Amino acid sequence: MNACETLLLEPHNGVLHITLNRPQNRNAMSLQMVSELRTVLADVARDEHVRALVISGAGGHFCAGGDVKDMSRAGSREGLRDLNRVFGALLQEVEALPQVVIVVLQGAVLGGGFGLACVSDIAIADHQAQFGLPETSLGVLPAQIAPFVVRRIGLTQARRLALTAARFDGIEAQRLGVVHFVEHDPQGLAQRLDEVLGQVLRCAPRANARTKALLLQSLDQPLELLLDQAADWFAEAVTGEEGIEGTRAFVEKRKARWVI
Amino acid sequence: MNACETLLLEPHNGVLHITLNRPQNRNAMSLQMVSELRTVLADVARDEHVRALVISGAGGHFCAGGDVKDMSRAGSREGLRDLNRVFGALLQEVEALPQVVIVVLQGAVLGGGFGLACVSDIAIADHQAQFGLPETSLGVLPAQIAPFVVRRIGLTQARRLALTAARFDGIEAQRLGVVHFVEHDPQGLAQRLDEVLGQVLRCAPRANARTKALLLQSLDQPLELLLDQAADWFAEAVTGEEGIEGTRAFVEKRKARWVI
Amino acid sequence: MNACETLLLEPHNGVLHITLNRPQNRNAMSLQMVSELRTVLADVARDEHVRALVISGAGGHFCAGGDVKDMSRAGSREGLRDLNRVFGALLQEVEALPQVVIVVLQGAVLGGGFGLACVSDIAIADHQAQFGLPETSLGVLPAQIAPFVVRRIGLTQARRLALTAARFDGIEAQRLGVVHFVEHDPQGLAQRLDEVLGQVLRCAPRANARTKALLLQSLDQPLELLLDQAADWFAEAVTGEEGIEGTRAFVEKRKARWVI
Repeated sequence: MNACETLLLEPHNGVLHITLNRPQNRNAMSLQMVSELRTVLADVARDEHVRALVISGAGGHFCAGGDVKDMSRAGSREGLRDLNRVFGALLQEVEALPQVVIVVLQGAVLGGGFGLACVSDIAIADHQAQFGLPETSLGVLPAQIAPFVVRRIGLTQARRLALTAARFDGIEAQRLGVVHFVEHDPQGLAQRLDEVLGQVLRCAPRANARTKALLLQSLDQPLELLLDQAADWFAEAVTGEEGIEGTRAFVEKRKARWVI
Repeated sequence: MNACETLLLEPHNGVLHITLNRPQNRNAMSLQMVSELRTVLADVARDEHVRALVISGAGGHFCAGGDVKDMSRAGSREGLRDLNRVFGALLQEVEALPQVVIVVLQGAVLGGGFGLACVSDIAIADHQAQFGLPETSLGVLPAQIAPFVVRRIGLTQARRLALTAARFDGIEAQRLGVVHFVEHDPQGLAQRLDEVLGQVLRCAPRANARTKALLLQSLDQPLELLLDQAADWFAEAVTGEEGIEGTRAFVEKRKARWVI
Repeated sequence: MNACETLLLEPHNGVLHITLNRPQNRNAMSLQMVSELRTVLADVARDEHVRALVISGAGGHFCAGGDVKDMSRAGSREGLRDLNRVFGALLQEVEALPQVVIVVLQGAVLGGGFGLACVSDIAIADHQAQFGLPETSLGVLPAQIAPFVVRRIGLTQARRLALTAARFDGIEAQRLGVVHFVEHDPQGLAQRLDEVLGQVLRCAPRANARTKALLLQSLDQPLELLLDQAADWFAEAVTGEEGIEGTRAFVEKRKARWVI
């Protein structure tokens, strides 16, 4: 992987830890950061050695949203449209990643940062993290984010958050279903991350990738077709390397080879 | 706006307060009330000075459902079909309204009243409000309501409520996701309404209308198309009157002009 | 109904109680059990005297998933695909049943057992029941189950459960929306079941069947078409036997004939 200016990358034990690293701007999502993230994701998607991604932010914040400087530079209406759409493309690519995506949320989780949290597979938040969609209070729209918020927590909660620009903390984020876990200090966050990574790494990587694809397809594919395809994938998995190893490990009462 | 027999209308500070006003019938939704509401909504949809709608009921109840007298008058099967469908049209129009719709729920929130609550953007309930779908216990169907209940709280909870005709209170309504807030007395309801209106009126009206349309379209439009359109709307908003004013106000550390 | 080897069937008062009865295998879902269940369901779907189905498991467990022996017998990839798909067909048929389906969940509710719970109308769980999707930890996929989990609890919670193979208890199952009620002992489960059956049997059977169809169609039909059809069904119900009896019973302040 190429060097990144806006990201810290630390591969460790089958897990790639990505730190959004513009702490002076509360890790606001600049065009450069979007571009670097997309490049990293394209590499990761092809890399069988990476089984999970952990995204967090440097300096006590996750991500405070888009970067206003890029917007003033974008100039024309076409430029603004493209700038906005490319962030949506990033969210689509994070969501479609075959690997398990975990986010660790502290401090600001606003606008685009909130959007990024909404495409994770597993979200762990600090109880004091600050979530919100401030866009409409600034005269603009949570354009690329809103559809992912609806997929995350449903229309009912999404509409209140988007139409009031209300802020809320990690405890409320768990109640609304934005995040799966809420912790009360850095040690709690680290322990929860360890536990979740341990669970993910007990699962077979290809089986997890296929299952993730199946879950996402459930949102827009007709049920009948989906179940037919799922049966095909099931048969492939059982007769494939992972299925055979999984069965043997189970019978021999040992850990499967993929367990780290 | 024309005078209404079944509604009280009080415009105040950019907000139209609508009171369902048939207290002798627990504000049961008569054909006339449906018709008057639809007329008011058509006016409001075109009126840029109205930024939010607050719907509540007179006499301690929100709305106890349809009016049985209209049903016996409807006579023929065609008449009953039209009577029913027109109530669904009302729910569709409330949902599609560009303005933010807030409901304040006390007493009976049954059948059609429950349906009306399900198309609001923000719902505030008294802890003792009585929610329920009694239709099947009377041999009929929550026909126009059921699809909106599924959109509101998902299939899992909707099926239990509709197939048991169970009653539940405001606390349970919040747990199920029907309402956003539950309060314990009229003062609590009034304070919460003030708070929510304050938040809504800090958001730019056109940005909110576009965001609401985007959220609703998320339910049935393909994601790719939706994100393309959203980028277009984003660029339009940033370069439009609200976007420019929002940026200036932010830089000048003052309230934007639309803040009431 | 034919005799079943893997099921106990007890009709009682308009309710068919089905007990999954392979306690030596924690009621693992063998091909034979799937086949017997499908035969029973086909009979029930045509039987107007059955108004609700209660499914539970013998010996303290609901169902521990698929039966591994069938899988090793299935042999070929085609055989495995068909074995898998037929279980999905069972879930589709349970979901589509006109009658109300109630599950009582104790002990293991794993894999296919979890899938079966996800297509019930009302789920009652013991607080110590053990839920989970262990498939990916065995190198295979929750193939026929995953789409029904998304329909049950949404993408956000489904992805964590499927990609971590995490176990969780009845209390967590209620928090996630998998089940409607959680109880702390067999007596509590029995009382809750009685209460729920009492509510279901106060509702008119045909009205309930139509309402259930309407709720399920909400997931994939366009709203406009659905509301048109719903209005038709409403008119049919009001002018039909149940609607007339329901209205009379209401006016005469007596129980409707269908109330058991």
